[in-house]
Amino acid sequence: MTRDSSSTLPAPPALFDTAVVAGVGLIGGSVALGLRQRLLARRVIGLDASPEVLREALALGVVDEIQTAPGEWLRAADLVVLAAPMRALAPLARDLAPFLNPHALVTDVGSVKGGIAAEMERLGVRSFVAGHPMAGSERGGVTHARAALLENAVWVLTPTDHTPLTALSRARTLVESLGGAPVVMPPDAHDALVATISHLPYLASLAMTHMVARDERLSLLAAGGFRDLTRVASGDPRMSRDMVVENKGALREALARFRRQLERLEADLDEPDELLAAALEGKRTRDSLPIVKRSLLPQRHDLVVAVPDRPNQLGAVTQTLGAHGVNIKDIEVLAIREDGGAVRLGLESPEDVQRAAGILAAEGFEVRGRS
Amino acid sequence: MTRDSSSTLPAPPALFDTAVVAGVGLIGGSVALGLRQRLLARRVIGLDASPEVLREALALGVVDEIQTAPGEWLRAADLVVLAAPMRALAPLARDLAPFLNPHALVTDVGSVKGGIAAEMERLGVRSFVAGHPMAGSERGGVTHARAALLENAVWVLTPTDHTPLTALSRARTLVESLGGAPVVMPPDAHDALVATISHLPYLASLAMTHMVARDERLSLLAAGGFRDLTRVASGDPRMSRDMVVENKGALREALARFRRQLERLEADLDEPDELLAAALEGKRTRDSLPIVKRSLLPQRHDLVVAVPDRPNQLGAVTQTLGAHGVNIKDIEVLAIREDGGAVRLGLESPEDVQRAAGILAAEGFEVRGRS
Repeated sequence: MTRDSSSTLPAPPALFDTAVVAGVGLIGGSVALGLRQRLLARRVIGLDASPEVLREALALGVVDEIQTAPGEWLRAADLVVLAAPMRALAPLARDLAPFLNPHALVTDVGSVKGGIAAEMERLGVRSFVAGHPMAGSERGGVTHARAALLENAVWVLTPTDHTPLTALSRARTLVESLGGAPVVMPPDAHDALVATISHLPYLASLAMTHMVARDERLSLLAAGGFRDLTRVASGDPRMSRDMVVENKGALREALARFRRQLERLEADLDEPDELLAAALEGKRTRDSLPIVKRSLLPQRHDLVVAVPDRPNQLGAVTQTLGAHGVNIKDIEVLAIREDGGAVRLGLESPEDVQRAAGILAAEGFEVRGRS
Repeated sequence: MTRDSSSTLPAPPALFDTAVVAGVGLIGGSVALGLRQRLLARRVIGLDASPEVLREALALGVVDEIQTAPGEWLRAADLVVLAAPMRALAPLARDLAPFLNPHALVTDVGSVKGGIAAEMERLGVRSFVAGHPMAGSERGGVTHARAALLENAVWVLTPTDHTPLTALSRARTLVESLGGAPVVMPPDAHDALVATISHLPYLASLAMTHMVARDERLSLLAAGGFRDLTRVASGDPRMSRDMVVENKGALREALARFRRQLERLEADLDEPDELLAAALEGKRTRDSLPIVKRSLLPQRHDLVVAVPDRPNQLGAVTQTLGAHGVNIKDIEVLAIREDGGAVRLGLESPEDVQRAAGILAAEGFEVRGRS
């Protein structure tokens, strides 16, 4: 089949019209960049109490517009992402709630989920889906934000019994469209999980560094392995403190379980065979952990194609690529509206993405690869 | 002054005539290589129960000669280094003791010191100085042995009240000549120290991996930081088990202190200001730990020069280098015997070592840089 490649195709609608990112730091900035670079929102507004942060976000092209305080302007938003630091999250939610459009999808990116989920229910924000993208960087702030930070990241979504299924479905599409891998579980399950794999290790590292701090002779020799082991104690102290305080219930349970495990190992010091079995099991478990978070998931090589609202346009895309030998592994319709839609194609390699983009562009399709 | 560069200089005597390394693995092999490459012993004999290991050691040039069992041949040794695995150390000492020359310096390289020190006292081996080079590698075995493993490594020596000072002095010279940095402390102080910075972290890591092993959902998300944190749980299970069992007394004390620190932090979950102070102190302590063991110490740039037994040869070396603008930061006489000696020169940079070697060689001196 042939297509008139000179025809001007209307841009397909984005997933969202007006997205608001409240708190433009490393994660908020990365979400904003992802929304812009993947054309998921028509415009992205950054809300932050700091004018300097907003100026930088604007200068870096992280957001389209800026606001320093909540207000009536928020009613235009059909997506609101709360990305303030842990302690500021509940107050921020209370400040925004009066202006939220009931049809807006509201989500957050905090690392503890029980509190914010409960707060949103108190505030009557029904279309809230709490989220936790398990991504981070040694360096914080909007300067280090990048859309790639969220790509292939496990992104936990924690709906409650009251969360509308449509909101959950929209949140999942948002996460997938940003390149993340949604994993859905209840808020308390999430919090127990991060208590074990993140907050308990933090507290244990802190306890060990304090032992060294009390005897400086130790620090002479506490290099190598000990330094690796206490790396988490080197994170931002205020953020770390807020995180563990927010999750103290689940953390106390994890501490109790940790103490039981330690006691068992201490008892095994008199049972060398038991201790060997424990050492073997520990090595097996540890070596089976994924090397990097990203390797959890098959690497995604996506191409988003705008599909005008004319008959068999989807077929035209797949047939054109098939004729050129490009193997489409996955296909997903991102948005269908009256004036057209967009589909995400999952391809085999970055090279295939580039080839397919060239082929489809030559046929007159508007394509959006990963920037 | 001028020297006849065509004159043949006798090789200076080594620190030791016959060195025996009992247990030719990663550390034993590295000691043997250091002894050979730095010409510290006239011959190095590898003793190991495994003929394959000995064949490999010989093929790799790690040792000059091999033996599979203790015997009268041991009486020729003036240096005996016990480098068997922890569990095999005491039995090995008992096997060797009847054949040890009373003038031989005997040392070991185990990671726990109280037990072997006591065993040697029971066996009446007076010139024993227990040692622990704090060096290691992910990969064990003689194949991975290299002299550089011990260079700039902290090497703890743990004399008791009964250790002759001459033996301690010889052990210190041995360690320095191998490029290590000797640190002297009593055996129980060493064992308390490694309990805190090595064995406790191992047990804590093991306890955490066991928590993950009991809930496989966790391992999906237990990547990144958690993996770093539990790296020590990935070491050789048998070696790790033996190490902590050998040191269980000190380890139990470290565990008790660790529990107290954890309890205090748990109580601080209700005192956010206290917890912030703890987080700040933890970060300060952790960030002040040396990045790598080697950076603990000023980097050494050594050149060993053979000095024939003629008047003012030491002066000839220093004057020749001075005339060429090479700055000698440190000088140490390694060995003086009737037929000559050797001096170690501490220079400012690897480039200076190379330049000085060229200058002295042109003047007819025999020089030995780091291989």
